[in-house]
Amino acid sequence: MEHYPSRLLEEAVNELSRLPGIGRRGALRLALHLLKQESADVERFGNSIIRLRTQINYCSCCHNISETEICNICSNPRRDASQICVVQDIRDVMAVENTSQYNGLYHVLGGIISPMDGIGPGQIKIESLVEKVNTGKISEVIMALSATMEGDTTVFYISKKLRDSGVKISILARGVAIGGELEYADEVTLGRSIINRVPYENALVK
Amino acid sequence: MEHYPSRLLEEAVNELSRLPGIGRRGALRLALHLLKQESADVERFGNSIIRLRTQINYCSCCHNISETEICNICSNPRRDASQICVVQDIRDVMAVENTSQYNGLYHVLGGIISPMDGIGPGQIKIESLVEKVNTGKISEVIMALSATMEGDTTVFYISKKLRDSGVKISILARGVAIGGELEYADEVTLGRSIINRVPYENALVK
Repeated sequence: MEHYPSRLLEEAVNELSRLPGIGRRGALRLALHLLKQESADVERFGNSIIRLRTQINYCSCCHNISETEICNICSNPRRDASQICVVQDIRDVMAVENTSQYNGLYHVLGGIISPMDGIGPGQIKIESLVEKVNTGKISEVIMALSATMEGDTTVFYISKKLRDSGVKISILARGVAIGGELEYADEVTLGRSIINRVPYENALVK
Repeated sequence: MEHYPSRLLEEAVNELSRLPGIGRRGALRLALHLLKQESADVERFGNSIIRLRTQINYCSCCHNISETEICNICSNPRRDASQICVVQDIRDVMAVENTSQYNGLYHVLGGIISPMDGIGPGQIKIESLVEKVNTGKISEVIMALSATMEGDTTVFYISKKLRDSGVKISILARGVAIGGELEYADEVTLGRSIINRVPYENALVK
């Protein structure tokens, strides 16, 4: 039993400790930090979080976060609308965008098939991807999901669903990280990167 | 430059990343987590944080958080009002209370003297402690501050301020942690615990 000197503090700690990766001790530390900030700053903090959840919109096309009905990427005529990069969530869109190596569109699944977490194919946005591909306007679907069992399961499920459409399906290259020391690469990755070795001239970054 | 798909998201990430120990990557993870929660839950979360900062009160006697003008500890007639335990912040009051080994009152400094962080004696609640002690009603001041350079500096400063009052000043015992393996104790602590060794019969927990 912890002795909280105030119900307000206890409530704030309860709320903060529900965030992922934050335990009760960390939540108390955050609450005491917030108590030391200016009132106006804390109000801005709390309100920005409430606004985030209550006012945000999603692109009706790719399910990415958007300020408009159709997001900036989907509505950009200079992007290649024949390519769709399938990602787990919004963070992955940002990660791929930051590489500046991709100029097609996205499709945000909003999750990944994970029986352990009780997430099945019906809970993520697979149907709308299949519909988009079935319009016949898509030439390639790039599966940019995590190289985990859940990611692989999701790729397998989606590729089966898309098989009849005849669309080209590709996945991200897997191998040793660029700049990484070989001795720190795990065995599975290293083994795969030997099996999937590429001719030297293809591997040079252009 | 990160590509945020929405200004609302960027603002929330900015706010979250100002929390101690949370970087921009962690802030984005928290923001995306909050987006997946129920609207009502996120509103409760945000409002509890705002309420914490705007509605909380401090005990006018010990500066601990309180729901009332004088906190539950200061106003409790069964507590020994002749002892004051001086702590850095509210968390430490909770930690000492959780031991159930102390029945006196507290004094929350609200910080610790730290030239590195630009915190001098004037920015923490030392004056009101000196005033309390100068009433002559206090028999012992227990300095329960961290065993760090900042803590020791603060103890030194306060003990000088209280010297004329003739009050008894004590500090927490320092030594190897109970239940800790000796081989993991650091050399300074171990050395001090040898110098300050106590007769066996005094060391038994009663």
